[in-house]
Amino acid sequence: MIINADILEMEYAVRGPIPQRAAVLRGEGRAIIPCNLGNPQAFGQRPLTHARQVLSLLEDPSGIARERRLAELEDGAGAVPGDILDRCESLLAQIETGMGAYTDSSGQRFIKEAIARFIDARDGDGAVPSDPGSIFLTDGASEGARLLLEMLIAGREDGILVPIPQYPLYSATIRKCGGVQVGYYPDEDGDWRLDGAELELRIHEARERGVRVKAIVAINPGNPTGAVLDRASIEGMVDFAERHELVLIADEVYQENCYGAEFYSFARAVGKRDIPLCSLHSTSKGFIGECGHRGGYLEVRNPARVQGTDLDLADILLKQASVSLCSNTAGQVMTYLMVAPPVEGSASHARYVQERDDILTDLHAKATRIRAAFEGMEGMRCFGRIGAMYLFPRMEKLPEGTTDFDYCMSLLEATGLCTVNGSGFGQKPG
Amino acid sequence: MIINADILEMEYAVRGPIPQRAAVLRGEGRAIIPCNLGNPQAFGQRPLTHARQVLSLLEDPSGIARERRLAELEDGAGAVPGDILDRCESLLAQIETGMGAYTDSSGQRFIKEAIARFIDARDGDGAVPSDPGSIFLTDGASEGARLLLEMLIAGREDGILVPIPQYPLYSATIRKCGGVQVGYYPDEDGDWRLDGAELELRIHEARERGVRVKAIVAINPGNPTGAVLDRASIEGMVDFAERHELVLIADEVYQENCYGAEFYSFARAVGKRDIPLCSLHSTSKGFIGECGHRGGYLEVRNPARVQGTDLDLADILLKQASVSLCSNTAGQVMTYLMVAPPVEGSASHARYVQERDDILTDLHAKATRIRAAFEGMEGMRCFGRIGAMYLFPRMEKLPEGTTDFDYCMSLLEATGLCTVNGSGFGQKPG
Repeated sequence: MIINADILEMEYAVRGPIPQRAAVLRGEGRAIIPCNLGNPQAFGQRPLTHARQVLSLLEDPSGIARERRLAELEDGAGAVPGDILDRCESLLAQIETGMGAYTDSSGQRFIKEAIARFIDARDGDGAVPSDPGSIFLTDGASEGARLLLEMLIAGREDGILVPIPQYPLYSATIRKCGGVQVGYYPDEDGDWRLDGAELELRIHEARERGVRVKAIVAINPGNPTGAVLDRASIEGMVDFAERHELVLIADEVYQENCYGAEFYSFARAVGKRDIPLCSLHSTSKGFIGECGHRGGYLEVRNPARVQGTDLDLADILLKQASVSLCSNTAGQVMTYLMVAPPVEGSASHARYVQERDDILTDLHAKATRIRAAFEGMEGMRCFGRIGAMYLFPRMEKLPEGTTDFDYCMSLLEATGLCTVNGSGFGQKPG
Repeated sequence: MIINADILEMEYAVRGPIPQRAAVLRGEGRAIIPCNLGNPQAFGQRPLTHARQVLSLLEDPSGIARERRLAELEDGAGAVPGDILDRCESLLAQIETGMGAYTDSSGQRFIKEAIARFIDARDGDGAVPSDPGSIFLTDGASEGARLLLEMLIAGREDGILVPIPQYPLYSATIRKCGGVQVGYYPDEDGDWRLDGAELELRIHEARERGVRVKAIVAINPGNPTGAVLDRASIEGMVDFAERHELVLIADEVYQENCYGAEFYSFARAVGKRDIPLCSLHSTSKGFIGECGHRGGYLEVRNPARVQGTDLDLADILLKQASVSLCSNTAGQVMTYLMVAPPVEGSASHARYVQERDDILTDLHAKATRIRAAFEGMEGMRCFGRIGAMYLFPRMEKLPEGTTDFDYCMSLLEATGLCTVNGSGFGQKPG
């Protein structure tokens, strides 16, 4: 059988040979520590109580009456708090057809409205308001990225600028769509800052080769660098996108994982300018960490007109989303609970704040500890402001004739630590 | 912006102009009856009690202790039955990392094993056993169909045989992948039976045009025809696939919706022969009707070797699945509960059987009533053994100059019934 050559050649390192070898070892009874993916609940991070209480009762609404009965019998002890039960009843009224029906292709309207409010609150005064009609609920952020790249890549000469190193979702999907990945290189020694001249150089080189560059991907905080981009780098990218009429794809799924550094959104940086911006968010990361529920959204601003039609990019995205009918309802609800946590003053609010802060403190402490450990090792160096859930150390003392892949595979065999070699994400030549 | 022309031209009638107009009317306060999609819970079909009880407690396992406490306080009345609670504990042990972690790319191992047992029990003695290692859990059956078509369509000359009329997922995805849809026409007047000569004619015609036919899609029971294929038609398709070395894609999501007619699986018809078979199933249909949870699976048999590699089609599917990390965990659990309902003798079994039979009786009665109504109308005729959730009547008396689209749009405006015109699924020329 002859199959799609782009799919045959596509690579995806975070599920590649090292994780596959780890699965074999695990099958043989070895203890494996899976550091190849940001999958916090596989590491014992606990889900947020309110989120699971709500989701549980939406799946089986008859539980609401049982919780009320239990509270009555036991004087409130142990049962799910009343504010959560009230909230579930209100949500059930808004969902109308329950958890088991297809929703509109782009998701439940009230959830899109809550997302727009969340974005507006995050970006603060003066920001351009988010439009619920331009929000698409997706099965994780991966689906949003896929829909965007499938739409934008129209032929084999179409290129997408991606940061190197990058999360291989982008390289794999660009490859699958038959497009050209055009790498740009944030400055590792400069704490992964991005120089405008670097972007100009790369787009110029690509055009010389006949590549038609359509979009630029930014990942902030970085995957896999774990670095929080500084404001000047972000603004430089926005100016660059405007100058070259590119679609800006902002992967902001780690926006809560800044550990003290300010998160500055691309929506804020774009402001009132007419630059097509597609921003991705997810329930898998942050402090919610609900990877398995595959919740997420894509927000589109200033969707460009599609040549030769009276449609814009958001119209096309809606058509694409409709072919898979809708994203999963549990993921939609999880997204709602991420953007609309218990309100201040409610019985569940204090617990939510406590859990959130404990998780973020724990993630920050782990990130700091791992970085310190690497910095204490001979021949290892780390760069950038700590963010996201990753570290991308530079190895300066690999034995002659060995690669980072060999190192990571040996690390797995010797210790059970499953990591991904840096070259799986792409690296600067040399 | 120039976008992917295949995506621009892709059409998807079940979310097309008529449903879009219905959404506008609904926004204006009109009562709309949405018959454009098989979405039973949007119509008031109730979810299966055991499925929601289990899913609810897996989302919030602390509820198990509360249910036990309530049963103790109230002598068992009202609480979730003990067999369900025991089952949840056993499932939590098998899931290991809970509902919030990414699973393996193809889904939880124990769920794939349960699916294999379900298939073996369905197909009975003498059937070739299903291999859990060749099962992929997907976000609904739509995702499985997408992965298959993306893999198989390698260029613009690659063709896929699809029945006409067909569920537009296939036409839209083939279009998106830049392939050629090669229609074949089951015999409407012969109750949608399929003649081997028809298939030979269509593949011959396609090859004359330079199309390289790679696969044939079968939908049984039919969407949108609502007809259950007879055994001779199925066996003819299998022989045809073998003769022309095609991949057989069997969309069998309505396998429980046969209403008395026997369901004969493609796996049974293939038997021991080395014919690549990819079968799709879903939690959205049958009597479970959990569309919103986006559960489903793809089972691969006899995966063909990929030219120029030592890989087979299942290896490629695994790589594709890994790029989106995994299907949603609630959908995976729902799939498990579909294939492994309460066992005979358990406290929940009788209730499960009652609910299942009530739903199937109700669906059968609705299908019969609607068919009788159409047959009583002048100029309307229906064909085929009743199955699935659809009816595809033939309209023989459309007023001069009007189309089925006009009819369906007028029906919507006059009555609030949202249907899909037959031409949205493709029809025999003339």
